[in-house]
Amino acid sequence: MLTKLGERAKKAERFLMTASAAQKNEALSFIAEALVENTQYIIEENRKDIAAAREKGMSESMIDRLMLDEKRISGIADATRELIGLADPVGRVISGTTRPNGLVIEKVTVPLGVIAVIFEARPNVTVDAAALCLKSGNAVILRGGKEAINSNMAMAKIMRQAIARAGLPEDCIQLVKDTSRESATALMKMNGYVDVLIPRGGAGLISACVQNSTVPVIETGTGNCHIYVDKYADINKAVEIIYNAKTSRPSVCNACESLVIHKDVAETVLPLIKERLDEKGVIIHADKRAGAIISGCIDATEEDYAREYLGYEISVKVVDSLEEAAEHIMTYTSGHSECIISESYTAAREFTSKVDAAAVYVNASTRFTDGGEFGFGAEIGISTQKLHARGPLGLPELTSFKYIVYGNGQIR
Amino acid sequence: MLTKLGERAKKAERFLMTASAAQKNEALSFIAEALVENTQYIIEENRKDIAAAREKGMSESMIDRLMLDEKRISGIADATRELIGLADPVGRVISGTTRPNGLVIEKVTVPLGVIAVIFEARPNVTVDAAALCLKSGNAVILRGGKEAINSNMAMAKIMRQAIARAGLPEDCIQLVKDTSRESATALMKMNGYVDVLIPRGGAGLISACVQNSTVPVIETGTGNCHIYVDKYADINKAVEIIYNAKTSRPSVCNACESLVIHKDVAETVLPLIKERLDEKGVIIHADKRAGAIISGCIDATEEDYAREYLGYEISVKVVDSLEEAAEHIMTYTSGHSECIISESYTAAREFTSKVDAAAVYVNASTRFTDGGEFGFGAEIGISTQKLHARGPLGLPELTSFKYIVYGNGQIR
Repeated sequence: MLTKLGERAKKAERFLMTASAAQKNEALSFIAEALVENTQYIIEENRKDIAAAREKGMSESMIDRLMLDEKRISGIADATRELIGLADPVGRVISGTTRPNGLVIEKVTVPLGVIAVIFEARPNVTVDAAALCLKSGNAVILRGGKEAINSNMAMAKIMRQAIARAGLPEDCIQLVKDTSRESATALMKMNGYVDVLIPRGGAGLISACVQNSTVPVIETGTGNCHIYVDKYADINKAVEIIYNAKTSRPSVCNACESLVIHKDVAETVLPLIKERLDEKGVIIHADKRAGAIISGCIDATEEDYAREYLGYEISVKVVDSLEEAAEHIMTYTSGHSECIISESYTAAREFTSKVDAAAVYVNASTRFTDGGEFGFGAEIGISTQKLHARGPLGLPELTSFKYIVYGNGQIR
Repeated sequence: MLTKLGERAKKAERFLMTASAAQKNEALSFIAEALVENTQYIIEENRKDIAAAREKGMSESMIDRLMLDEKRISGIADATRELIGLADPVGRVISGTTRPNGLVIEKVTVPLGVIAVIFEARPNVTVDAAALCLKSGNAVILRGGKEAINSNMAMAKIMRQAIARAGLPEDCIQLVKDTSRESATALMKMNGYVDVLIPRGGAGLISACVQNSTVPVIETGTGNCHIYVDKYADINKAVEIIYNAKTSRPSVCNACESLVIHKDVAETVLPLIKERLDEKGVIIHADKRAGAIISGCIDATEEDYAREYLGYEISVKVVDSLEEAAEHIMTYTSGHSECIISESYTAAREFTSKVDAAAVYVNASTRFTDGGEFGFGAEIGISTQKLHARGPLGLPELTSFKYIVYGNGQIR
């Protein structure tokens, strides 16, 4: 069954590859329109998912993630419309050269081809991912979670009809209706049909994709983000940035999970940080040296240094030097976002050179690692691997390139 | 055992990440020097491999690939020295922006980290791959074939000593001494230690890596390259380019394997092509229409259209239109190099837009798909996948990037 899906996607890809920006933008605008027009239908289908979730005893916060209402659907439509204004990432000449023998070699962006997106309960991803793939000229195969299957099917159907109205093949957007584990595993092995697999979801899903996929994967997501308070830190900046990075939205991957404090400022800064984090009831897992300065902490274990709490918890370690801080961070980093708070030019330069992650900050909250905040206009996830793309994945990251070589009879 | 290797590579990577271009270049020059100085030692070790190969009845052409002599070793040293003059690919600011809130975001190239290279019998790859990885700031784990183990061990030892003299950790270059299939499989699963795996060798090796690897792979190599002779072709250019692309070096991946001929020129061009290819005794697998024009051909099967002959054989198909040509090519392409011969502006543009491959040519031999010919100075292979890099992999393709974000207290 999935092979058929793959064949159809490959055919659609061929069409989409040479579609004009105007045609793709028209399709996006039709999608947005159709979603709004069919709001009631989507809500009805979504209610089936909600009812099933309630029956299975899903938590209210999970049900909230699943829920679609008029406002949310109009938000999804708006996000789709926003893509229209962004530059078309396909057909951009990245570079070019004329060789001594007269060959002109141009490097030009092209779509990746067929992108498979495996995601979990949030139904908005269905439209998000499809719209980003469409804009970047990629056919998409969506495989959402079973919790949202009715909502996803409704939205996929609406999107397929909308793009057909714009003269694009419906199969540019396909949804896998089988939500079994087997269908996900089959997608991971569809070499020849799927060019790239992007998992969007929790650590379990991502690791399953990395372990089982034979098609190339862009790993997204987990963030054990550190903030290092240097000897030369502006204490006030440190406290406010840490408060923001930990508590403004603790459930996301760019939230701060670990603090590293230089010994020379630990006695000054730790009580102030504790006081501020106490406002939100943040649990602090402190090493011995930090625990001796601030009370009411839990002893930090090795596991704590590696954990992505995704909640009101944080680990703290006191170090003797920037060197030790960088060493600690490089041991436990998930390669997402790392930050130094320092007024020292030399310390800032040393930190940004020694610490390797998708985003390395000086004196700013790690919460800025986000396609919107980086000015990309949209993102399909945040890559924590080094191959292909790192950090927020915007439209350019959904493209590859080809070399076009213009000759007049050259032989070698 | 391999875990230890991985740990050492990760440690070396950390050092290499911040090594200066001058230091890496000094190490390259020491490697070249040491290889020449130790020529006799390398030849002695290589003789052990040759003797073992003879005993096992290896073919003379394979033995020739394995063999190292004074001239070849000096050639390897020269290739290493040539890297010194190339621009350092690390630390390049690709782009940068200042956000409305004052954050300055820079996108800067960094090494990929630890690269594992699995390769087959050619011992020159040992130095080639190590030198390219070193120049691009990556630690490398080399896993060569058992046929060349003595030669590889000798050269790895010499290189490790040479880079230590330049103040770099020896573990920037490591060779897996265990040449069993198990060691290759273990390398493919070393997530957390190996950032990228590059297989260099035949289709079997590459497919084993794609199938089994859980670390990201850059797929290299197979080339079923087509040349399409358009209705508006300059017949003379067509014949000379085809002769060059097929016969100048038929064993390589950028050699032409398949011809597609427009029906309007088939009767004129096919006899001329046949005459020219006959000079080298090229076997032609022709479809019915081509076979009706030229005699002495073998009937082409479906398999022929997909085959990479890597020898003096070629398939031919006659088509009714450029559209059909593009369709045929996209069905059988391995995504390496494809070419149109045409004097028509419109046909050239249509072909380069509809045909998707690492390199798409107009009126030039597919043999130019090569790092040296593209002006890259060096290459570690030719990628036929779309993720990360496509076509010849030069030094820039051995890097990733990170975002460095400069703030002054920004919170979100």
